[in-house]
Amino acid sequence: MPGSNALVAQSGGPSPVINASLQGVVEACLSSGNVDRVFAAHHGIEGVLLEELLDMGRQAPEELARLRHTPAAAAGSCRYKLRDGYGADYRRILDVFRAHDIHYFFYIGGNDSMDTAHKVDLLAREQGYGLNVMGVPKTIDNDLGDEGRTLIDHTPGFGSCARYWANLIRSVGEENRAMRPSECVSVFQAMGRDAGFITACARLGDPKREMPLLLFLPESGFTGEALLDRVNETLKQHGRAIAVVSESFMTDEGSRRVDGFGHVEYGASGTTAMQMVVSLLNRSKLAARGQATGQIPGVLQRCASLEASDTDREEAYLLGRKAAEYAFSGLSGRMATILRVTDTPYRVRYDHVPLETVANTARRLPREWIAKSGTDVTDDFVRYARPLIGEAAARYESEGGLLRFARLEYTHEPKKLPAYTPCGF
Amino acid sequence: MPGSNALVAQSGGPSPVINASLQGVVEACLSSGNVDRVFAAHHGIEGVLLEELLDMGRQAPEELARLRHTPAAAAGSCRYKLRDGYGADYRRILDVFRAHDIHYFFYIGGNDSMDTAHKVDLLAREQGYGLNVMGVPKTIDNDLGDEGRTLIDHTPGFGSCARYWANLIRSVGEENRAMRPSECVSVFQAMGRDAGFITACARLGDPKREMPLLLFLPESGFTGEALLDRVNETLKQHGRAIAVVSESFMTDEGSRRVDGFGHVEYGASGTTAMQMVVSLLNRSKLAARGQATGQIPGVLQRCASLEASDTDREEAYLLGRKAAEYAFSGLSGRMATILRVTDTPYRVRYDHVPLETVANTARRLPREWIAKSGTDVTDDFVRYARPLIGEAAARYESEGGLLRFARLEYTHEPKKLPAYTPCGF
Repeated sequence: MPGSNALVAQSGGPSPVINASLQGVVEACLSSGNVDRVFAAHHGIEGVLLEELLDMGRQAPEELARLRHTPAAAAGSCRYKLRDGYGADYRRILDVFRAHDIHYFFYIGGNDSMDTAHKVDLLAREQGYGLNVMGVPKTIDNDLGDEGRTLIDHTPGFGSCARYWANLIRSVGEENRAMRPSECVSVFQAMGRDAGFITACARLGDPKREMPLLLFLPESGFTGEALLDRVNETLKQHGRAIAVVSESFMTDEGSRRVDGFGHVEYGASGTTAMQMVVSLLNRSKLAARGQATGQIPGVLQRCASLEASDTDREEAYLLGRKAAEYAFSGLSGRMATILRVTDTPYRVRYDHVPLETVANTARRLPREWIAKSGTDVTDDFVRYARPLIGEAAARYESEGGLLRFARLEYTHEPKKLPAYTPCGF
Repeated sequence: MPGSNALVAQSGGPSPVINASLQGVVEACLSSGNVDRVFAAHHGIEGVLLEELLDMGRQAPEELARLRHTPAAAAGSCRYKLRDGYGADYRRILDVFRAHDIHYFFYIGGNDSMDTAHKVDLLAREQGYGLNVMGVPKTIDNDLGDEGRTLIDHTPGFGSCARYWANLIRSVGEENRAMRPSECVSVFQAMGRDAGFITACARLGDPKREMPLLLFLPESGFTGEALLDRVNETLKQHGRAIAVVSESFMTDEGSRRVDGFGHVEYGASGTTAMQMVVSLLNRSKLAARGQATGQIPGVLQRCASLEASDTDREEAYLLGRKAAEYAFSGLSGRMATILRVTDTPYRVRYDHVPLETVANTARRLPREWIAKSGTDVTDDFVRYARPLIGEAAARYESEGGLLRFARLEYTHEPKKLPAYTPCGF
């Protein structure tokens, strides 16, 4: 539709490759001839509500090119939950779209975002406003979709997080074996909320099972006491252990804090899973000399760009492009998706699925991928996840040893509507 | 001395480049013609006491070559404190040296290790046993030597840790700006015990001071209340903040644990500095929407090899070589050292200083390198530390996307002495 514009927004936690998806959407839009202008909402849906829009066509081309290897969310993200149903927030979104002639809306995010995009699509139809809505999947947690992987094989961002953990465990294996007599247990806390996909990826760093590596997945339901037994068994055998615990492990509800969607924000907790485990171990009589020490990579696993996967980055970029192409072909209310063709050689295909079906899904690590021991994953999981970390390290631009990232111009497009205070502020 | 052998051992916490020093010592010894065999003690001085020696001349040459880019301590480290004075442990060391014709002893470590090496040197002289003892400096903490830098300019390992923090802050700057509305304060805990050198290196990631970055150095003596004020000032101005706190910040003595040397092992604490700060912030009314989240890179800052500095690695290797050359020239009771010639261009020279003088030094961040605000370092510090992170990323070998490290053969040399139980076991 000439005379019409596009808008892209990002929501939720960043990933090392979300800007590659942003770049894919923007590039495909700008080169399509289907739209005049492409806006990015500054800080996701909050930017739409506040009418804070960035004109992506006026950004320096070399900075747009740098989006491919810039981590986090260059246009800004948020964790704002729109008021449910067809309330004032949703109506405001359509008001902003109308004011800026926005007829294509691309929403990059996880399950909550797909739900939001779905509701915006429904409201536009109801109001007879011509809008093509496409979701672009993103979450390092890989918890979007169904266990059968008919909706999506894996989410962009997960492969880079998997690579981060794989090489973290490689380096930590060296550290743990070196420090065996004194710091015999290394405890690491992994993100993922209720899903164990990220915790599971520690296994990718030791696919031949040469390390004394124990995974405490949220799906396994281990207690602290059972963890202590497993660690001591490992210490008896190897004199050392590496324990990766999911961020929800042993955490008590009292110390939890929630984000705008009501999800627990474990990084803000009063007592972390790592702390619970380290304190438990150090209060106990361990079956080896030495003590337990703890680490929380936290946001590093979603922004440490040196560890991004080249495969993940290319897929994220292509999903952005595909979403734009699908929208221009007339589709709406769909999410661009990636489906596995074969594991070996690794081959995928791109498609689209209804937003309604993926909205608010919460995939967990399938039971059959958890090893009988409960503290490991199966080779089937390794076959699934291994290709996602890519082969070569992703390339980075650096200046004097420091990473160099995209720098967008954050001057907002002139506002056309009266100021609005989002319902949730 | 033909007919004589050399022994190298490592002590204390690992670094990404300690194996480069190990390689330097071993290569220089093997090619010198001055010794028949080169042993490495398996797990540092514990390996000497237990007579667990690895023959480095029998290791596969390609694995010795890989030591240059293998993090941690390939021959193993420990935190064992020898019984003071000339007790049984020290006598045992000389017994083991005599039994294996060891007349050159290289000890890679920090201040405690230099003290140990000094005492071994004194005892050998007293007993008339021909032994050349050389220390090789190593600690990511950079807390060895004097503030005037006449003993050593910087310790190998510090440059790689500095690079880790510099690029961590680069990536976290992207993350923090992206998540401004919801996760407005990112808290990071840095190693370094009582010295703020590592905390200070966060500034290297933002030398132009474009980020809302606050450093809480142990030397500044901030209270929790003062931290809260500074964070809120920054939130009022920028809507977000990145706070790097030293691992000793706000920690209470009750929750501390100590290592074999009586030093606090903050990674094993019952309550971490990060937790204290995150809980304090989230209990308070922050001057911006959102909450604080916390990270503890922990051992990753001393083993995350992807971030090693090429400059640091070369210097670590050369210090190992120099130590061997000095020993073969007849010196004993000295530490190989590195001294700054000029900052720009960065030039250093190698020399040696008495072990007695460096033993048990505890350098802290000089007052004049702390900015007036108390939450930053000066440009003089940046000029000092910037060259240490190197220019290019250090190169790594990888197999299928996974880092590939040296693999030594851990078969111990046949024992010649009766078993011995170290006094501290």
